[in-house]
Amino acid sequence: MLHQTATRLSVTTRGRGLYDITDRISAQVTNAGVATGLCTLHLQHTSASLLIQENADPDVRRDLDAFFARLVPDGDALFVHTVEGDDDMAAHVRTALTTVNLSVPIVDGRLCLGTWQGIYLWEHRTHPHARTLVVHVLGAAE
Amino acid sequence: MLHQTATRLSVTTRGRGLYDITDRISAQVTNAGVATGLCTLHLQHTSASLLIQENADPDVRRDLDAFFARLVPDGDALFVHTVEGDDDMAAHVRTALTTVNLSVPIVDGRLCLGTWQGIYLWEHRTHPHARTLVVHVLGAAE
Amino acid sequence: MLHQTATRLSVTTRGRGLYDITDRISAQVTNAGVATGLCTLHLQHTSASLLIQENADPDVRRDLDAFFARLVPDGDALFVHTVEGDDDMAAHVRTALTTVNLSVPIVDGRLCLGTWQGIYLWEHRTHPHARTLVVHVLGAAE
Repeated sequence: MLHQTATRLSVTTRGRGLYDITDRISAQVTNAGVATGLCTLHLQHTSASLLIQENADPDVRRDLDAFFARLVPDGDALFVHTVEGDDDMAAHVRTALTTVNLSVPIVDGRLCLGTWQGIYLWEHRTHPHARTLVVHVLGAAE
Repeated sequence: MLHQTATRLSVTTRGRGLYDITDRISAQVTNAGVATGLCTLHLQHTSASLLIQENADPDVRRDLDAFFARLVPDGDALFVHTVEGDDDMAAHVRTALTTVNLSVPIVDGRLCLGTWQGIYLWEHRTHPHARTLVVHVLGAAE
Repeated sequence: MLHQTATRLSVTTRGRGLYDITDRISAQVTNAGVATGLCTLHLQHTSASLLIQENADPDVRRDLDAFFARLVPDGDALFVHTVEGDDDMAAHVRTALTTVNLSVPIVDGRLCLGTWQGIYLWEHRTHPHARTLVVHVLGAAE
């Protein structure tokens, strides 16, 4: 018996960096009452992305952001699209290098994340933003 | 009631660059008659990829391609796989840095893309190609 | 009629490099007995990733790994997270630049991979590891 839910979540960011959304996604999975299935996340933006990464040492998130800041410099002279600020085109490239959607299977009523995996929204703009995430759960109640 | 469709689309490219396929994907979703569900795209190649990015200013696509061209230089002396031309191994790396599949939830009979999001096929080879894309729609008719 | 299977596979690596897991995934799809559907792979780690890439010339995999090794140097002075070794933070960045989950449609009882596509587990740590992969198959038996 097919069961589905689709919910829009708003995630408020304080500017560039990784924001842990694991608990909010897990709550949607629990609410859906699905034993086995699939949870798909879609972020409706082009200058912020989704990432599954280590949830233990915060230095990992710090280093990830530092690496991306060096790889894709704000205000790079290569960029023509500059009207929305120095960080805007860099944010589009950082998003292209990661992803805006993820699909994680649900097993025994829970997301099958590894012990050290968390789900993060990665804000690539330097200023605070309100981001919209669609959480789709599909499966069988058992 | 589970409903599914799977369609192969051919996308013709004129060489390196981003090609908007949003309308063709949306038409498949409409044809499938699914109210709530999931649309998965799979590109059957290793030197072209799929990307969700800004659909407004074309400079964003120009800058994305310019950034990737600098990050992954054609004919890089590092590459051993060179028989298919200077752009071939660069195209494989560019594909690895992005993705060949995407899953977008369907809500109220439509792909839940953000206002500024378009779906693009990113051709990484310099010459024109015919690319095959599988569009899978899964869901319930209501 | 909705049909689902979810299986945990263990993949043993001998250190950094790409490991072909296509046959093991295809076997799970065959076992599931699904004619049309979706196969989602989720790797439960943050220092190894999943990649769909060329299965013909092994030089492509060699070049991919060489490119990533140059792009994300082990022991980069930028990194603060260094307690688990020189290759650890580089492995997290390489994982962020690729992905830990993939969804491939199933058509006519088989993964709809292109002729030259293989599915690889990309080990980013230099030492051997045992990696856990969840294979979720969802669809209809026909």
